[in-house]
Amino acid sequence: MMDLEIPERLVPVRDKIDEFVKTKIDPLTEEFQTSVNPDDEWSLSRRQLEILDGLKDDARDAGLWNFFLPESQGGAGVSNLEYAHLAEVMARNPMASEVFNCAAPDTGNMEVLERFGTEEQKKEWLEPLLEGEIRSAFAMTEPGVASSDATNICTRAVLEGDEWVINGEKHYASGAGDSRCKIMIVMVQTNPDAPKHLRQSQILVPRDAPGVNIIRPMSVFGHDQAPHGHMHIKFDNCRVPKENIILGEGRGFEISQGRLGPGRIHHCMRSIGVAERALELLCQRALTRTAFGKPLAELGGNYDVIADSRIELDMCRLA
Amino acid sequence: MMDLEIPERLVPVRDKIDEFVKTKIDPLTEEFQTSVNPDDEWSLSRRQLEILDGLKDDARDAGLWNFFLPESQGGAGVSNLEYAHLAEVMARNPMASEVFNCAAPDTGNMEVLERFGTEEQKKEWLEPLLEGEIRSAFAMTEPGVASSDATNICTRAVLEGDEWVINGEKHYASGAGDSRCKIMIVMVQTNPDAPKHLRQSQILVPRDAPGVNIIRPMSVFGHDQAPHGHMHIKFDNCRVPKENIILGEGRGFEISQGRLGPGRIHHCMRSIGVAERALELLCQRALTRTAFGKPLAELGGNYDVIADSRIELDMCRLA
Amino acid sequence: MMDLEIPERLVPVRDKIDEFVKTKIDPLTEEFQTSVNPDDEWSLSRRQLEILDGLKDDARDAGLWNFFLPESQGGAGVSNLEYAHLAEVMARNPMASEVFNCAAPDTGNMEVLERFGTEEQKKEWLEPLLEGEIRSAFAMTEPGVASSDATNICTRAVLEGDEWVINGEKHYASGAGDSRCKIMIVMVQTNPDAPKHLRQSQILVPRDAPGVNIIRPMSVFGHDQAPHGHMHIKFDNCRVPKENIILGEGRGFEISQGRLGPGRIHHCMRSIGVAERALELLCQRALTRTAFGKPLAELGGNYDVIADSRIELDMCRLA
Amino acid sequence: MMDLEIPERLVPVRDKIDEFVKTKIDPLTEEFQTSVNPDDEWSLSRRQLEILDGLKDDARDAGLWNFFLPESQGGAGVSNLEYAHLAEVMARNPMASEVFNCAAPDTGNMEVLERFGTEEQKKEWLEPLLEGEIRSAFAMTEPGVASSDATNICTRAVLEGDEWVINGEKHYASGAGDSRCKIMIVMVQTNPDAPKHLRQSQILVPRDAPGVNIIRPMSVFGHDQAPHGHMHIKFDNCRVPKENIILGEGRGFEISQGRLGPGRIHHCMRSIGVAERALELLCQRALTRTAFGKPLAELGGNYDVIADSRIELDMCRLA
Ligand SMILES: Cc1cc2nc3c(=O)[nH]c(=O)nc-3n(C[C@H](O)[C@H](O)[C@H](O)COP(=O)(O)OP(=O)(O)OC[C@H]3O[C@@H](n4cnc5c(N)ncnc54)[C@H](O)[C@@H]3O)c2cc1C
Ligand SMILES: Cc1cc2nc3c(=O)[nH]c(=O)nc-3n(C[C@H](O)[C@H](O)[C@H](O)COP(=O)(O)OP(=O)(O)OC[C@H]3O[C@@H](n4cnc5c(N)ncnc54)[C@H](O)[C@@H]3O)c2cc1C
Ligand SMILES: Cc1cc2nc3c(=O)[nH]c(=O)nc-3n(C[C@H](O)[C@H](O)[C@H](O)COP(=O)(O)OP(=O)(O)OC[C@H]3O[C@@H](n4cnc5c(N)ncnc54)[C@H](O)[C@@H]3O)c2cc1C
Ligand SMILES: Cc1cc2nc3c(=O)[nH]c(=O)nc-3n(C[C@H](O)[C@H](O)[C@H](O)COP(=O)(O)OP(=O)(O)OC[C@H]3O[C@@H](n4cnc5c(N)ncnc54)[C@H](O)[C@@H]3O)c2cc1C
Repeated sequence: MMDLEIPERLVPVRDKIDEFVKTKIDPLTEEFQTSVNPDDEWSLSRRQLEILDGLKDDARDAGLWNFFLPESQGGAGVSNLEYAHLAEVMARNPMASEVFNCAAPDTGNMEVLERFGTEEQKKEWLEPLLEGEIRSAFAMTEPGVASSDATNICTRAVLEGDEWVINGEKHYASGAGDSRCKIMIVMVQTNPDAPKHLRQSQILVPRDAPGVNIIRPMSVFGHDQAPHGHMHIKFDNCRVPKENIILGEGRGFEISQGRLGPGRIHHCMRSIGVAERALELLCQRALTRTAFGKPLAELGGNYDVIADSRIELDMCRLA
Repeated sequence: MMDLEIPERLVPVRDKIDEFVKTKIDPLTEEFQTSVNPDDEWSLSRRQLEILDGLKDDARDAGLWNFFLPESQGGAGVSNLEYAHLAEVMARNPMASEVFNCAAPDTGNMEVLERFGTEEQKKEWLEPLLEGEIRSAFAMTEPGVASSDATNICTRAVLEGDEWVINGEKHYASGAGDSRCKIMIVMVQTNPDAPKHLRQSQILVPRDAPGVNIIRPMSVFGHDQAPHGHMHIKFDNCRVPKENIILGEGRGFEISQGRLGPGRIHHCMRSIGVAERALELLCQRALTRTAFGKPLAELGGNYDVIADSRIELDMCRLA
Repeated sequence: MMDLEIPERLVPVRDKIDEFVKTKIDPLTEEFQTSVNPDDEWSLSRRQLEILDGLKDDARDAGLWNFFLPESQGGAGVSNLEYAHLAEVMARNPMASEVFNCAAPDTGNMEVLERFGTEEQKKEWLEPLLEGEIRSAFAMTEPGVASSDATNICTRAVLEGDEWVINGEKHYASGAGDSRCKIMIVMVQTNPDAPKHLRQSQILVPRDAPGVNIIRPMSVFGHDQAPHGHMHIKFDNCRVPKENIILGEGRGFEISQGRLGPGRIHHCMRSIGVAERALELLCQRALTRTAFGKPLAELGGNYDVIADSRIELDMCRLA
Repeated sequence: MMDLEIPERLVPVRDKIDEFVKTKIDPLTEEFQTSVNPDDEWSLSRRQLEILDGLKDDARDAGLWNFFLPESQGGAGVSNLEYAHLAEVMARNPMASEVFNCAAPDTGNMEVLERFGTEEQKKEWLEPLLEGEIRSAFAMTEPGVASSDATNICTRAVLEGDEWVINGEKHYASGAGDSRCKIMIVMVQTNPDAPKHLRQSQILVPRDAPGVNIIRPMSVFGHDQAPHGHMHIKFDNCRVPKENIILGEGRGFEISQGRLGPGRIHHCMRSIGVAERALELLCQRALTRTAFGKPLAELGGNYDVIADSRIELDMCRLA
């Protein structure tokens, strides 16, 4: 079996993150969540920005920043597997990933730019992302086709002179709702006649490029998750410069694979962090709420329910 | 074993409801759902009222109305068990229960009024409810106590002269958000020193009574379900006439039991109706969407997933 | 939905069977099970035969006999679906099916003979089976091929003069261990070049025909279920008269389908009967055995375990 | 989280065991299992002893022996947790634990004797056990009381002169069937009036002591597991010397706790080893058996069944 434990040297880092979350982020979370911008749910309110930027400054000062990138790439020298263990503790608080500049989809987008971007692309988009100054989105999934099979993607990008002209629809583009989102990586079809896995390319599309129409937020279990959002976007003769392509024509599928693999581990570990938090809250409630003369925990088979949850959760961990 | 089948004589009724839902309600549902009132999400828009009232008229004309009440009570002569089978087919469309004047919590409230109300109470509240002219709410659950144990209820009602003065908080009061909701049945504590099951009473409280403060909608899986809503309400020296009590002091627990029993069967059968609809949509999607060169249904073990869903659903039925 | 309830007219029959099982068979069961033949576990002991034949006589006298056959066929006038409800109550006791002459595989074999047998075949084998004088087996499954796909069957039967010469192996032939088993219906391949579903035939093979070698009992969850047994049989130039074929060459698959369909419902209902008995025993034990100062039923979430079992069992019923 | 991985230094040991099992034990297993003693199923046949003793010699020579005991105690210097990882690979073959002198209940019995035995007890019983010359049993569970609660134990031992006189019944005493079993550790009640957890003692009872009546094997899922056996034993004025008590009167519960804790981890890891083997066999069968024109693996959702089994199994591991 692979060794999937968190390595010794990262234990103090994880504990530091954990403490930062509990002592700095937790106490401000309710205020953040209720200080919604009354005029525009897709922009953070002044108070929200104040809280968030303050926490980001603290995290950066504490050296808790950009963990997801291997050292070579300006990151914290943490492998994907190792990072997964940090993702878990961040996930206990809904704001925390962003505070440490480790929020999806920026993480994946930064990885792509770091590995495959040109110097110009890095300068323009990677640097402000690494600094936490802007946010970004990734748009692959399309309403019209089964996008679990990325070869189905059919939003077209055609080169006209010095520009890519993009037409098609994407949905579930997470983070594209946030007014701080400045750039999107869009998966398009450039070579319809190439072999199946060489038809796609990835192109950088500024969120304010002409022809980008953000139609509506999708809802996920009833939430629109404003201001982040999972957006339905229509590209209507959208034009971006030729050099906005990443790595070259026909490399889109390849880039996707590299990007989505690590993302899967990270998402799973975040789910575990959220589940830990849920179980914690469940236990608190079960012990403090009284029905039929007993704490809820003591009614029926509830201790078993709790024990089973604990076991299932531990069984899901990497190690 | 009890005979839990739908009786012969109700088969044509169920089929008539089913057809009404599919041919009359389904085609208008999307328009209804998108014609939201832009100014106030807690009132239906003019177009929504037009659609809904039109459908209600048609249903009443077709004799598909008030199924939940036994004949003796001005209803359709259908027992609770029998009604459950009708609840299933109504549940396939989110508007349908209301169209047939069979929507919760009006159903339970009407039953309570029919069985236990005074002539005055019936005239003022039951009649317009039976006509589908107004809507209603039932407020038992409280934020402060475990309300699965109704003896915990502690919103206080004290008789001052000719009026009950009510103080306390309720949450999850379904339907109290809708501007058409005119009356609430509120479970209160009137006799704190009586034996456990005789402490509560139920009192009719008009939604616009002084001291009724509807604070906010609860969200259920992220939905606020406007305009219906599951509302958090604060009673702040709320005053209603002495004769608004139902059945008498200390009878609250007893009324609750009578009300919630049938409600449970109805809710379960509605869940089955919704699940049937979900399975139908799942199958349609699975057969029409193509990934990796095949309809989704043919990938992996998806046929088994579908078959298991079918089996589980049939196993949940009454018969 | 189909009406899967037991029909009114069979309720008294089911209750009569149930009472017979509880008052007559249950009290003798332990003695039967411990009076094993010390010399030969594949023959019933004298005491076992005495008990069994006595009960069979009583059952026949009480009119509780051969329920599985439709009336037209000398049976009790009970459809397959109806019979299923009777199979459930018989299954509570391991001897009961045989006492009512309703034990597999005789039931299926009798059905086959009744529907497809010649007058001679009926006289020789069906009559003593209907009388409960002999027992029988059905041999389809083969060790060498996946027999869930009956077209794989490859035990060969070749016509030589007036005789079928059979060569091949079968296993899991239930009941072929019992010394009272006199006849087997064997599925063979007669026409290897015919279309897939016309290659097989079914042939009547007396258990003592030359060339029938019963090699060993299979074990099922560790039991050999002597004297019934699930036997591994080798046919080594086994010879039977030409007229022992049922319905004609190439009809084997067709006969199988007709036979196994009803058998599936019966087996499932027997499983429910056994599960009912298991749950009954579980409850008795849980209430009478004490650990940590309480009956087992009150420890941990055991009441939930019991309730879930009850629910699952009821969900499995036909109705 | 605790580190539950197998430590680096034990990886070669585990691999050596694994190879020994696959290259030396597996090839002889079928012969061992079929060379049953025709005269007495409770003694190994000559050929069985030959195979088993040969393998034990090889294992001892290879240094693969007595892993379960910490070094200090003449064992292999392996902690309980570490041993668990070795138990897994041994469990793939039903003979293997014994070949490495690591079979229950000897393991637990040796631990008890090593830690709590007197010099005389060690000399007489521990030494031959450590050498693999004799086998042993542990008898705690009683038919008459719920033995999951060890304070219920009521087999009585009374001191008469220099002897303990034991009366009572035990069942499920694993290994007590084997003619090589020479000694049993028996949990008895010595001080009925002491506080609950001080009433029991553990006493060494030679299997051939007067008054030890081995009544019958219990069956577990239909297996009697001869010659090992899980035996029902009656102690009828059974007499053993006073000094056969372990650690002293009233220490029985305490010894049990120490013994059963590690046993639980070992049993669980053995279950995983067996499950690994089962999954291996399942995969082989699924790929080589053909129904409906395809290997079984490709029918229905079988790949998912296999994948789920793999996942569940990995989720059960310590790490
Ligand atoms: C909260 C959320 C955030 C998201 N964020 C983004 C984002 O930022 N950017 C983006 O581009 N997309 C995003 N998505 C979209 C997500 O990536 C897609 O929903 C997903 O890839 C599935 O594609 P689809 O919706 O087209 O489903 P389809 O491909 O139409 O259907 C998927 C279904 O097909 C079946 N299936 C597929 N393959 C197999 C197989 N091998 N075996 C068995 N069954 C199979 C399964 O039933 C599966 O559920 C997000 C989605 C959610 C819910
Ligand atoms: C969509 C929706 C609509 C609703 N509409 C209304 C409405 O119109 N009017 C209204 O008054 N209320 C309404 N409710 C509230 C609902 O009736 C309560 O949530 C419910 O009665 C539970 O009460 P509680 O929330 O106080 O939970 P609590 O009572 O605090 O906790 C319930 C939990 O206690 C445990 N528990 C309780 N009893 C047992 C037992 N015997 N054995 C084992 N465990 C036990 C279980 O874990 C259970 O989940 C609605 C709720 C929802 C979600
Ligand atoms: C107690 C008992 C009594 C029996 N009595 C008799 C008897 O009296 N006479 C007799 O002839 N036989 C008898 N049998 C045998 C029984 O009929 C066969 O075991 C059964 O038909 C399966 O055939 P097989 O063992 O060759 O398994 P195989 O056909 O080799 O394998 C079956 C497996 O294939 C897979 N499979 C097959 N089809 C599908 C599909 N469509 N989708 C997904 N997976 C699939 C499943 O994993 C299934 O478990 C008895 C068996 C038992 C256990
Ligand atoms: C294969 C096998 C080998 C064995 N080998 C030995 C051996 O070598 N020596 C020996 O002495 N014994 C042996 N046993 C016996 C075993 O240790 C006992 O069966 C076990 O301890 C349970 O005791 P019991 O059978 O008396 O069951 P009981 O104690 O009567 O009942 C157990 C049941 O009680 C309930 N229960 C108990 N506690 C709780 C709780 N806290 N919460 C919820 N439910 C609870 C559960 O439903 C549980 O299944 C063996 C058993 C088997 C199956």
